[in-house]
Amino acid sequence: MDGTQHHVSSKKWRRKIHEVIYEADTPLGKLFDVVLLVVIIISLILVMLESVPDLGKAYRNEFITAEWVITIFFTIEYFLRIISINKPSKYIFSFYGIIDLLSTIPLYLTFFFGGLNALLAVRSLRLLRVFRILKITRYIGEADKLSKAIKSSGPKIAVFLFAVMVVSIIFGTLMYLIEGPEHGFDSIPKSIYWCIVTLTTVGFGDIAPETAFGQFLATIIMIMGYGIIAVPTGIVSAEYSQSKREKSDKKTLKNESNYRHVNTQVCQNCHSKKHQDGALYCHNCGYSLDE
Amino acid sequence: MDGTQHHVSSKKWRRKIHEVIYEADTPLGKLFDVVLLVVIIISLILVMLESVPDLGKAYRNEFITAEWVITIFFTIEYFLRIISINKPSKYIFSFYGIIDLLSTIPLYLTFFFGGLNALLAVRSLRLLRVFRILKITRYIGEADKLSKAIKSSGPKIAVFLFAVMVVSIIFGTLMYLIEGPEHGFDSIPKSIYWCIVTLTTVGFGDIAPETAFGQFLATIIMIMGYGIIAVPTGIVSAEYSQSKREKSDKKTLKNESNYRHVNTQVCQNCHSKKHQDGALYCHNCGYSLDE
Amino acid sequence: MDGTQHHVSSKKWRRKIHEVIYEADTPLGKLFDVVLLVVIIISLILVMLESVPDLGKAYRNEFITAEWVITIFFTIEYFLRIISINKPSKYIFSFYGIIDLLSTIPLYLTFFFGGLNALLAVRSLRLLRVFRILKITRYIGEADKLSKAIKSSGPKIAVFLFAVMVVSIIFGTLMYLIEGPEHGFDSIPKSIYWCIVTLTTVGFGDIAPETAFGQFLATIIMIMGYGIIAVPTGIVSAEYSQSKREKSDKKTLKNESNYRHVNTQVCQNCHSKKHQDGALYCHNCGYSLDE
Amino acid sequence: MDGTQHHVSSKKWRRKIHEVIYEADTPLGKLFDVVLLVVIIISLILVMLESVPDLGKAYRNEFITAEWVITIFFTIEYFLRIISINKPSKYIFSFYGIIDLLSTIPLYLTFFFGGLNALLAVRSLRLLRVFRILKITRYIGEADKLSKAIKSSGPKIAVFLFAVMVVSIIFGTLMYLIEGPEHGFDSIPKSIYWCIVTLTTVGFGDIAPETAFGQFLATIIMIMGYGIIAVPTGIVSAEYSQSKREKSDKKTLKNESNYRHVNTQVCQNCHSKKHQDGALYCHNCGYSLDE
Repeated sequence: MDGTQHHVSSKKWRRKIHEVIYEADTPLGKLFDVVLLVVIIISLILVMLESVPDLGKAYRNEFITAEWVITIFFTIEYFLRIISINKPSKYIFSFYGIIDLLSTIPLYLTFFFGGLNALLAVRSLRLLRVFRILKITRYIGEADKLSKAIKSSGPKIAVFLFAVMVVSIIFGTLMYLIEGPEHGFDSIPKSIYWCIVTLTTVGFGDIAPETAFGQFLATIIMIMGYGIIAVPTGIVSAEYSQSKREKSDKKTLKNESNYRHVNTQVCQNCHSKKHQDGALYCHNCGYSLDE
Repeated sequence: MDGTQHHVSSKKWRRKIHEVIYEADTPLGKLFDVVLLVVIIISLILVMLESVPDLGKAYRNEFITAEWVITIFFTIEYFLRIISINKPSKYIFSFYGIIDLLSTIPLYLTFFFGGLNALLAVRSLRLLRVFRILKITRYIGEADKLSKAIKSSGPKIAVFLFAVMVVSIIFGTLMYLIEGPEHGFDSIPKSIYWCIVTLTTVGFGDIAPETAFGQFLATIIMIMGYGIIAVPTGIVSAEYSQSKREKSDKKTLKNESNYRHVNTQVCQNCHSKKHQDGALYCHNCGYSLDE
Repeated sequence: MDGTQHHVSSKKWRRKIHEVIYEADTPLGKLFDVVLLVVIIISLILVMLESVPDLGKAYRNEFITAEWVITIFFTIEYFLRIISINKPSKYIFSFYGIIDLLSTIPLYLTFFFGGLNALLAVRSLRLLRVFRILKITRYIGEADKLSKAIKSSGPKIAVFLFAVMVVSIIFGTLMYLIEGPEHGFDSIPKSIYWCIVTLTTVGFGDIAPETAFGQFLATIIMIMGYGIIAVPTGIVSAEYSQSKREKSDKKTLKNESNYRHVNTQVCQNCHSKKHQDGALYCHNCGYSLDE
Repeated sequence: MDGTQHHVSSKKWRRKIHEVIYEADTPLGKLFDVVLLVVIIISLILVMLESVPDLGKAYRNEFITAEWVITIFFTIEYFLRIISINKPSKYIFSFYGIIDLLSTIPLYLTFFFGGLNALLAVRSLRLLRVFRILKITRYIGEADKLSKAIKSSGPKIAVFLFAVMVVSIIFGTLMYLIEGPEHGFDSIPKSIYWCIVTLTTVGFGDIAPETAFGQFLATIIMIMGYGIIAVPTGIVSAEYSQSKREKSDKKTLKNESNYRHVNTQVCQNCHSKKHQDGALYCHNCGYSLDE
């Protein structure tokens, strides 16, 4: 604490802002996260409603006004994030830094250059910002276990996807030869699309086999898809129950380890995360974490 | 037993009615439950058949008559439930009390105010009354185990649903930009609807991608959906087999505990349930449970 | 062996026929089963092809001739089965006895009474006869394990089906109110049909919600269906792996018990099955099993 | 090494070519595999794009030129494979030998005999050649474990497929009788096709029941399909987690055994594979493996 006494007032303010914006340990930090979450969700709903033809035309001005308010809010937040960190480049070129920029600038671009309405849909990327805020919720443990199960079953699922691809290409080509363009199987890529629609049991029905042999082949594809679906399920199921068993084994050994990452401290200097509870200095650059 | 001797005759009758209507330990109580079950099911079938245009017109009078008979039966039951309990408010504002009221009054409302035919569909809520009766069947053990597995996999499934939602919003927006209103993707909400239809492998086909790139993206969504479906299955599977193992472990320790809740006694005074077998007084208010 | 010496010649013939038709231990018995299997499959293919409009008309006479040949073959087999058994009623009123009769008589009935073409489809029941023949194959062990897993998960699946039913009725009624007859939701039963089509992720698309709120509700139904599908899978998975573990535990105790039922001996007198290997007399009636 | 000194120069060259084409231990061998993989994938993409009507016509000449280049490349590779092996028949009549031939000759056949455009689709078989190259990747362990799980659940899945078939035939026939040709159920085979489309939850919607009873039956089929899908998933899940457990048990015993097959050596003389690491002579014919 003593070492930070001589910090000039501006530094103190930057540290304060840093704590509120980047962390969620203080009441103000939590409030900021909640406000941000609400603004992001409102913004997403507005983007969606704006795309509905009837609403988009009737309330055109209201949508534009709301969008400007939100964009200015995000712009302020973006600059506060930059000035409150010691090495702004660490934030600007991080994943969330880019997302923040991309979800803020579309309106400015359409304002200055006009006509780029498609660009406005980029605002949907604001959704990804939700993850940053939710990172600190109680679901983290679950998501962690799940993502571990998914990660460890990754290579198997890659093999499986490769198999799906091969089956689709072979049967897609066959269906193209059997049904042909007159029954909607215009080209091999479209036949492969149909084959994946069928294998995954989605079955839009926009294209459907009409010849007897085509229907027979479709039957085989469907039953294969029915069998294939069992494979990733079996894999994830097995991996998940194993990762669960391992977790519960570990828990009995060192049972507080589960909560280590829930800490939301972020180093103001080097932007590194996952500091130990009660840590006074950054484990990466040695910068003081406390005020 | 002695303590209840001085109860006046009206109290005895109320106790008798309470036992028949609320409990299922006596032959009359069981008979009442069976009759009620049959009436509810008949009533549900009538509501359904009435909605079939041809039948609804042809047998209009028969339907109205039957509905009045059932409504009067439910009305009587409702008042018996109120008068046989010491604190009627405990029943009236309980979950089933409200369901009972809602599933009884629609016909009276349409009779007095007329024209509110949509209101008649509220009668479908009678279905929920079935649960009260079935609560006492032998399936309770199973439902218990299942609901426990579902409950303990709740947070994981919440994470999973959140993931589905995020994927749908991102890909829905993308599809809206690629396919556009000319191919049925009228607005972002509708695109998200299509995306969920595809992710869950339902695939109505009311909207289907028509551009090559849209179909390519659809392919990715479908395969993702195919992979994602593995996650909740794996979770429930793992949780269920664990809750089963735990149950069988517990059973060896205290093997009668499984049947504790099958008892159907309900306190006439405070409407509380789950009394121990052979209990003489309510565990909540101390009121005598026996006659 | 000595005890059977005094059997009269007719009895010997009946015993011989019984052995060939009912059992599969002798080469002739096996040959008979194979021939029967081939005839049943040919017969099924003929029934199917006959229903194809173009083929049915073009080769009308050929189909009728083939059908008569097969019917006469089945008639002879039916009578041989009756005369070769001591108590014919045991066979006639058994499950397969009734199937045999039903799959043989349709042609006679249409011949004598005419016009009952719908009746000819009853011949599809011949399919069930396949099971009698396949009973003696090596798959028996597997089918046994599987059917045990399915049986023990029966009550849970009943609970689950009940849940599906309740969800379908509630959401079906809601969709009927929201979408109404103008969007294809003609009546509550049809709405329930649509709801099950959606919940099971089949999604024909013959009926699809068109209002925004209807589509929103459909989204919820689909995601529920997606979650619900996890439940029976998890159940069967858990039950199956348990029944497998138990089986392997038992095997180590008495490892020949698995093959006890593969024996195809059938008592000529009382039609009982599952005799022990090398048994000389029926375990049920004491009749000699050997020649 | 000494024993190979007296080999004539031509033999040395053949050995060199053999090593480059058949094996992947040397840098040149790896390079060759990568080049081959790229050419195969380009060739597949060309076959697909060529089938797109617009592209196929616009760039007709470019496609033909590219196809000739690829075909000549494959022809050279095919002959090098033949001359570099001691017993060419071992390669020519092996699985990949036939695939190589079939994926090379279509263009020659259409050049000499003309008009056989359908034949060109045979080139899709080139896809299978990808497997030969990928055999040597790190996924082998995973694919191995998976294929073992699938193999050991084979007989059960056969039982299950048989059940699906039986259900489809019975319900297909029923639906044909109920709905009839006027609602799209033209014949029993088509009804069976519809039944499989429904059971597997694909649900194209090209045919859909229209009578009330037909829809009721469809409901039953769908719920059955919903239940049946649980069976193969449960099987694969149980088998997979077992094969995984066994694998991890074995690994602790002899933990290098997992990598034994990753070696890509192929005997030049008898075309046999899976030699032990560091083997100097073929385990099958005793021919020297080293230069």
